[in-house]
Amino acid sequence: MKKFLDEDFLLDTETAKKLYHEFAEIMPILDYHCHINPQEIYEDRKFDNITQVWLGGDHYKWRQMRSNGVEERYITGDATDREKFQKWAETLEMAIGNPLYHWSHLELKRFFRYEGYLNGGNAEEVWNLCNEKLQGGLSARKMIEMSNVTLICTTDDPVDSLEWHKKIAEDDSFAVQVLPAWRPDKAMNLEKADYLEYLDQLSEVSGVKVNRFADLIEALSKRMDFFASCGCSVSDHGLEYVMYAPASEEDVETVFAKRLSGETLTKEEEKKFKTAFMIALGKEYHKKNWVMQLHYGVKRDNNGKIFGELGPDAGIDSINNFAPSSEMADYLNALAKTDELPKTILYSLNPVDNAAIGTIIGCFQDSSAVGKIQQGSAWWFNDHKTGMRDQMTSLASLGLLGNFIGMLTDSRSFLSYTRHEYFRRIMCALIGGWVENGEYPADYKVLEKIVKGISYNNAVRYFGFSL
Amino acid sequence: MKKFLDEDFLLDTETAKKLYHEFAEIMPILDYHCHINPQEIYEDRKFDNITQVWLGGDHYKWRQMRSNGVEERYITGDATDREKFQKWAETLEMAIGNPLYHWSHLELKRFFRYEGYLNGGNAEEVWNLCNEKLQGGLSARKMIEMSNVTLICTTDDPVDSLEWHKKIAEDDSFAVQVLPAWRPDKAMNLEKADYLEYLDQLSEVSGVKVNRFADLIEALSKRMDFFASCGCSVSDHGLEYVMYAPASEEDVETVFAKRLSGETLTKEEEKKFKTAFMIALGKEYHKKNWVMQLHYGVKRDNNGKIFGELGPDAGIDSINNFAPSSEMADYLNALAKTDELPKTILYSLNPVDNAAIGTIIGCFQDSSAVGKIQQGSAWWFNDHKTGMRDQMTSLASLGLLGNFIGMLTDSRSFLSYTRHEYFRRIMCALIGGWVENGEYPADYKVLEKIVKGISYNNAVRYFGFSL
Amino acid sequence: MKKFLDEDFLLDTETAKKLYHEFAEIMPILDYHCHINPQEIYEDRKFDNITQVWLGGDHYKWRQMRSNGVEERYITGDATDREKFQKWAETLEMAIGNPLYHWSHLELKRFFRYEGYLNGGNAEEVWNLCNEKLQGGLSARKMIEMSNVTLICTTDDPVDSLEWHKKIAEDDSFAVQVLPAWRPDKAMNLEKADYLEYLDQLSEVSGVKVNRFADLIEALSKRMDFFASCGCSVSDHGLEYVMYAPASEEDVETVFAKRLSGETLTKEEEKKFKTAFMIALGKEYHKKNWVMQLHYGVKRDNNGKIFGELGPDAGIDSINNFAPSSEMADYLNALAKTDELPKTILYSLNPVDNAAIGTIIGCFQDSSAVGKIQQGSAWWFNDHKTGMRDQMTSLASLGLLGNFIGMLTDSRSFLSYTRHEYFRRIMCALIGGWVENGEYPADYKVLEKIVKGISYNNAVRYFGFSL
Repeated sequence: MKKFLDEDFLLDTETAKKLYHEFAEIMPILDYHCHINPQEIYEDRKFDNITQVWLGGDHYKWRQMRSNGVEERYITGDATDREKFQKWAETLEMAIGNPLYHWSHLELKRFFRYEGYLNGGNAEEVWNLCNEKLQGGLSARKMIEMSNVTLICTTDDPVDSLEWHKKIAEDDSFAVQVLPAWRPDKAMNLEKADYLEYLDQLSEVSGVKVNRFADLIEALSKRMDFFASCGCSVSDHGLEYVMYAPASEEDVETVFAKRLSGETLTKEEEKKFKTAFMIALGKEYHKKNWVMQLHYGVKRDNNGKIFGELGPDAGIDSINNFAPSSEMADYLNALAKTDELPKTILYSLNPVDNAAIGTIIGCFQDSSAVGKIQQGSAWWFNDHKTGMRDQMTSLASLGLLGNFIGMLTDSRSFLSYTRHEYFRRIMCALIGGWVENGEYPADYKVLEKIVKGISYNNAVRYFGFSL
Repeated sequence: MKKFLDEDFLLDTETAKKLYHEFAEIMPILDYHCHINPQEIYEDRKFDNITQVWLGGDHYKWRQMRSNGVEERYITGDATDREKFQKWAETLEMAIGNPLYHWSHLELKRFFRYEGYLNGGNAEEVWNLCNEKLQGGLSARKMIEMSNVTLICTTDDPVDSLEWHKKIAEDDSFAVQVLPAWRPDKAMNLEKADYLEYLDQLSEVSGVKVNRFADLIEALSKRMDFFASCGCSVSDHGLEYVMYAPASEEDVETVFAKRLSGETLTKEEEKKFKTAFMIALGKEYHKKNWVMQLHYGVKRDNNGKIFGELGPDAGIDSINNFAPSSEMADYLNALAKTDELPKTILYSLNPVDNAAIGTIIGCFQDSSAVGKIQQGSAWWFNDHKTGMRDQMTSLASLGLLGNFIGMLTDSRSFLSYTRHEYFRRIMCALIGGWVENGEYPADYKVLEKIVKGISYNNAVRYFGFSL
Repeated sequence: MKKFLDEDFLLDTETAKKLYHEFAEIMPILDYHCHINPQEIYEDRKFDNITQVWLGGDHYKWRQMRSNGVEERYITGDATDREKFQKWAETLEMAIGNPLYHWSHLELKRFFRYEGYLNGGNAEEVWNLCNEKLQGGLSARKMIEMSNVTLICTTDDPVDSLEWHKKIAEDDSFAVQVLPAWRPDKAMNLEKADYLEYLDQLSEVSGVKVNRFADLIEALSKRMDFFASCGCSVSDHGLEYVMYAPASEEDVETVFAKRLSGETLTKEEEKKFKTAFMIALGKEYHKKNWVMQLHYGVKRDNNGKIFGELGPDAGIDSINNFAPSSEMADYLNALAKTDELPKTILYSLNPVDNAAIGTIIGCFQDSSAVGKIQQGSAWWFNDHKTGMRDQMTSLASLGLLGNFIGMLTDSRSFLSYTRHEYFRRIMCALIGGWVENGEYPADYKVLEKIVKGISYNNAVRYFGFSL
């Protein structure tokens, strides 16, 4: 029996151990997609206690606490931080087989040097240990540096001033690059009540008065120039699904005008607008050689009671299983047929979509980049052992795993870089298993290239960051 | 090589063996969902031969016999019981990897002490052995008692008199609780030709003349009171999918009136009615603290020729893969937003839905019960090794496996309690594998709690039965 | 650690090795579905070099080369064959976990006796070795004979003269049967621009002037007689999905007349026509005791730029995930209810459909054939280790794996018979694992029957070929 979470955690063959310890473990981290607040990096946020780090905004954990019958006051309410930690420790015990069990203990081990396993009985001890470290200098920047991170992309709205990114860039005391990523969802979601106010903001910061759809794209293009000037080369879209309802320019302008005048749009009109929006932005990305990330398959804010109390990102999102692969292919083709498809990464929240995505990316590859169209790493609810293993097995079966750009944290927490470790261990176990089983030669020269590539080098090449 | 179906069947690690033999094996069975006829329990049905027990109503087996090219007369026709048994024995040999192979041999072993494996060549020997036991006292009650069952929930229509449940309750010679479960499908399926006759029956037994939709709910509520007086606290719904088409009370009354007058309804009207029905009943369950079971993803009676000859439950049902997760989430929210969502168990016949269900249940948990919203055990066509393992792996990856309420038989047969053994072995193998692999600590205090919980204790707590 | 691709490749238990080497390996190949050009068999095509064999029309490989950033001129363009081979060798290295890695090396081993592994560094050596063999007599017929093939079904249009099949049949020097298979897609796809021209061709070769839908069916029936006279007993349909939109004969004639007159049809009209077409043909197959193959779940020609340059079959097809299982069940029932359902094989390109198919086939089995309704082998993008293993595990869990008719190549290449070897190894590993794990008795008499059956004998029995 292997010891719990020892140095060979998840590495079930000798080859897996060799691949991990010799190649994967030593590579730095390029976290090309996260939701960290750049202000907190700039200001080097300090934490009083582990509850602030772990339970402040982590809706993954909130869900599990609710599943364990914990009252909301101990989750997002007015209980003390110590009480909340206690409830989390008691919940964790039941999370056998859950990635949170592994992530939490990897974080305790790597950042706090805690070697045991947390439960209701020893919560006090762990609480004290962690808080001592946190109060003794384990700040936001320290966590990032300990994790051997070279570059971070945050998530930013087109109207954002990027003030904190600029300040970080000017701060010589911090070697890690912190770049913005472009997330224009608010500019697309014209069904939202506050859409017109958003357009006002956009008009103001871009200097382009948005009266027509064409203006909207122009305004966004100007903002993209500004983002690019701050080092941005990555976009990100959160889509219900990758839709395709082509319409004439005139039709799109009509829909947009209708929205500006305050009229209600039909679902079909909304879809036409969004399709036109995504085509226009895709072409801009291609022009600028940006990477386009498409995240889809989510239904958000499902629980009206909790949403009313806590708003979005409260642990009440789920998979939406409506995602026609035919529309996704048609959308990509709308860009590809005129040779304007940018580098693209596709992520579905529904693991069922793995095979469809794997076959679609193969249709749109070309020599403008190695692995130009990527299936994104197992995302959100899928970033557990089975999810990652399935995503990589599917990708390998259908395409070239060797060109995969690998893991991202998608996280709001400074501790979550251990997810890269988790991913790399799973990746090395998968590849090591193939080698041990005679399915790939034990040629360590090429295995090194593949493992280091998936861990780090492929992402560097793909995004084109200067590191 | 392991011996076929030995005492460590499916237990592939030392930890799995320990977990099973020390914790799981000794727990009683709480079969909270089955289709056993309570009259047969009360009357302690005797059987002449194994064909009566095995092939009388078991459409799982009928399907396999047809797949093996067996003529219908040897399946459901006028061949002798001995001939039918022969055909089944010959079929079984081809069922390598099928749960029927395992279930059948577990049943032969546990109830008949047969240690070999059945095939065409030894069918005569097995026939004689089984019949001897059956004629020597292996009756319905004996089978239940041998299986260490403490409580059974049957499946009952709202108009049922529950006569046999009452008689069993009064019978001191039988220690096992046999409770009704509430299955109001006939009250919902207003598209059926005999719906109005059903309403007449319901009016009569409830004492509420059903002229309006509101009357229907009142009549059902009265019947729920009656069911509760007989110990019922579990409902069960067989749905095409969990739909959501909200409508005003007035609209629903209009649809209902239209149906009463004999007019044909549109699909959309039907959906509005069914949504209103499910919301009204969900609220009643919440009031009464009942558990709501939702089974969906089935297309029934697909083969017109066989259906014409044999009617329903003839082995001609399949998965229906239309099941929008967005509507399921919206339906649950329709109850949750006013804090009227009862304890709920979701089961899809389509294993593809595992991840969607796993993410949805996490949105609706609260402190009114531990594991309030459950993903049901791998159901019907999925209750095989891979299906159970996948369901538990998915549940563990997305939620708290430690709070899972575990297995049910869903069966018409008194022998099928070995499915609990099958399930527990698979569960212990899964958990044991994690422990051996260093993914969870080898802490037997908490492992005992988890394994006994999933085997039995969680269901006791969840349903609130007094045992 | 196992050596790469040694004699026990993929055979991970002693039982698996025994099953493979004693039973599976020695069976001949019945390739009941491929896309080989019969003219090339008749003329015994010779090849100058390995690029002609490997890269001439293999869009599986083209996709991977594009994924590796290779320029199109080295894939389908005017680069030299040696240059193309070099690019493929360099690409292959990155294809860890991909079936092409295994297929390519199995082909190198079995046909060229190459024992190493190909990469950019040794491409020259492999190029020379292969070309020497190819120029030294390794012709199309030689490859087939080396593979122990007894029978091949090609894929042929109803208007085809079957000239080459006749010539092969008359050629005593070649012992392998080469039979046509009936693929009437062009007669069904009335949305295509050239449909009317196709009808003219069909009218001409059948001698039935197609003015009405009934004529179309009559013309096809005459051609089926002709195909049957050349030994055909297998049909094949490439469907978007298995649809069901019943319509009266009159309605169908109206739709057909509309199409003949050049009017544009609605999607619904198209669907009615196709449903009627598939019902009519299904009944014909039943009459003639042919096997009906239904392939679905594909979206073709997704990339407009590549399609414009290369046309169809250019490596730009993907999974289409719209495939309602309810319509598939309804279509099968439209034939079954009058007892006119032929032997049928269902293949979806979407592996997600495995369970739905597995439950549907069980509804339509009867005693007219053993395993009358089959789930087809893991197809196209799914014919990798995981895909095959999943398909067989699902089939075993839901039906009788023992009656499975097994593998086909679905290939355009004369080298791809090693896919049968690949399949058989995976099958023996799966079954061997069950036996070693105590899930099936180690009874080699029945295991021999099962393994030889799935490898070869079941297909012989199922199709009824005389061999």
